[in-house]
Amino acid sequence: LPAVVRTIRANRRELARLLTRIENNQAAAELAALYPCTGHAHVIGITGAPGAGKSSLVNALARYYRRAGQTVGIIAVDPTSPFSGGAVMGDRIRMNDLSGDSGVFIRSMATRGYLGGLAHTTGDAVRALDAAGFDWIIVETVGAGQSEVDIARTAHTTVVMETPGLGDDIQAIKAGILEIADILVVNKADRPGAESTAQTLRVMLDLGHQAERAPHHRYTDDIPAVNERAQAWQTPIVQAVATDGRGIPELAAQITAHREYLNQSGTLTLRERGRIEAELLDRLRGALLAQLLDGAAASMLPVLVERVLRRDLDPASAAQAFLARVRQTE
Amino acid sequence: LPAVVRTIRANRRELARLLTRIENNQAAAELAALYPCTGHAHVIGITGAPGAGKSSLVNALARYYRRAGQTVGIIAVDPTSPFSGGAVMGDRIRMNDLSGDSGVFIRSMATRGYLGGLAHTTGDAVRALDAAGFDWIIVETVGAGQSEVDIARTAHTTVVMETPGLGDDIQAIKAGILEIADILVVNKADRPGAESTAQTLRVMLDLGHQAERAPHHRYTDDIPAVNERAQAWQTPIVQAVATDGRGIPELAAQITAHREYLNQSGTLTLRERGRIEAELLDRLRGALLAQLLDGAAASMLPVLVERVLRRDLDPASAAQAFLARVRQTE
Repeated sequence: LPAVVRTIRANRRELARLLTRIENNQAAAELAALYPCTGHAHVIGITGAPGAGKSSLVNALARYYRRAGQTVGIIAVDPTSPFSGGAVMGDRIRMNDLSGDSGVFIRSMATRGYLGGLAHTTGDAVRALDAAGFDWIIVETVGAGQSEVDIARTAHTTVVMETPGLGDDIQAIKAGILEIADILVVNKADRPGAESTAQTLRVMLDLGHQAERAPHHRYTDDIPAVNERAQAWQTPIVQAVATDGRGIPELAAQITAHREYLNQSGTLTLRERGRIEAELLDRLRGALLAQLLDGAAASMLPVLVERVLRRDLDPASAAQAFLARVRQTE
Repeated sequence: LPAVVRTIRANRRELARLLTRIENNQAAAELAALYPCTGHAHVIGITGAPGAGKSSLVNALARYYRRAGQTVGIIAVDPTSPFSGGAVMGDRIRMNDLSGDSGVFIRSMATRGYLGGLAHTTGDAVRALDAAGFDWIIVETVGAGQSEVDIARTAHTTVVMETPGLGDDIQAIKAGILEIADILVVNKADRPGAESTAQTLRVMLDLGHQAERAPHHRYTDDIPAVNERAQAWQTPIVQAVATDGRGIPELAAQITAHREYLNQSGTLTLRERGRIEAELLDRLRGALLAQLLDGAAASMLPVLVERVLRRDLDPASAAQAFLARVRQTE
């Protein structure tokens, strides 16, 4: 085993330090070394609107796995503070039930507003936890929008949470978020309207399956095919009360079923390939730009910015002018 | 005036068609032509959690401006359907009050899951509406997370909406979203707890101003300085009931005050410069990658993807290997 893997398996504080270096983008060597030791863990993404009870569900699911003798790594992603990068204290507090158990490791991470940041930092953190030997890795993310797309890229099984009787806006959100759900949980199912929410979701899911899928363009800026579910998997809807554990065994059973489906249908490999493609392109984009800004043409950039600011040149033409200059100076 | 500007000023259907071409990324020539005619409109971003009443506020604000004889363009961005690209029907329905008024133009746009898509397509759509001569452009976006960062990049004045008495998760979100707010609206202020929500927000805002700001790195992947508010602007909190118009004149007055502040303090130019920098870098990243994938080395990419998939190579090393090959073949 590589030294870094031995270290993080033996010592949780070393694992925590590695995650900090990953967050600070200073762990390239360790990530390269541990990468061959990944691929053991199953990664569960849990997402949903604010107030859906994500932390409670993560907590309940982790306790369930622990009782079965399995280990759990948890990453709570907070995309809600793009500028300050502050993690949510509440997450840590609610996770107290699990503290003191060495079979559970919990980490809050901020995305720091980096476009597509979840995919990179969280993806690397997941790899570290994977190499550290956890059986299950749960990635919890709050919010509606980009973060869900990212979680669908990072997780093997994406669990989308809903609650009974939410308003119009939430209904609108559902249509989008349903498409990334491998499993739907109607949490707080002891509240009125749980059954009708589940039925509505079922109808929306069935409609979605009939609708035409967006085409998948390889090697472009488009979303990779993270949702190319084979026909065989029908998204199950699990009713749960995360705070008292109702529905958790059913959820765990569905996660296991989905894992088996991914393996047997070959979808796992398809998804991983899509994810790797997207990550490579993302890294190349960043590296190419860094190269460019290191070069002789970089001094032209502020000049172009001022011209665009004066409306002397439009942004697209400015980008083209810059690239033309780069070609000349190369 | 350029032909495209004359056309979209004379004919709303032509404007709608141009926006469709912008959404489909097929309007480069028109965007270049109309760009010199932008810079007249003031762009207001309105954001907040689902259920905050964004559409009602947009509606009320647009009606207020119309009564004052001013024209309003509205862009409702739906980041909630990353895969299907479907826009929210509800938005259109709720905007019915305004239909039939030629001084108002309403457009729903989907972001289609493109990373940072709001910044590009919406930014270009805002430019089209600006060149079309609207006095005010309102960009409404739902959700928590990346979309707010994008709206803060696109708008001159960012209005963040809250409602009284929301739960824990929402409280956590506030901390992040407050940082992009130029004006805070506590909507549904006729509900219990409005005053205490406003006070809590005031305290959080004051704490935020004391806290250290994240450093601003120019020409990197980091978020540009969209929030470099000079010390002089203190984010006001406006209580409103959007459905019956209470608080709307106060909100409009604060927007005007913020507009004057932006102009007089020079912050407007700072923000525009930051936005242009970010946009140029974004365009360069895309163009560089497209160039690369057009080149001889592109055939190496699937091979690298397979090696990463087999865990024979880690993603960062794969990206480096690819770039090294590009340098050889150039």
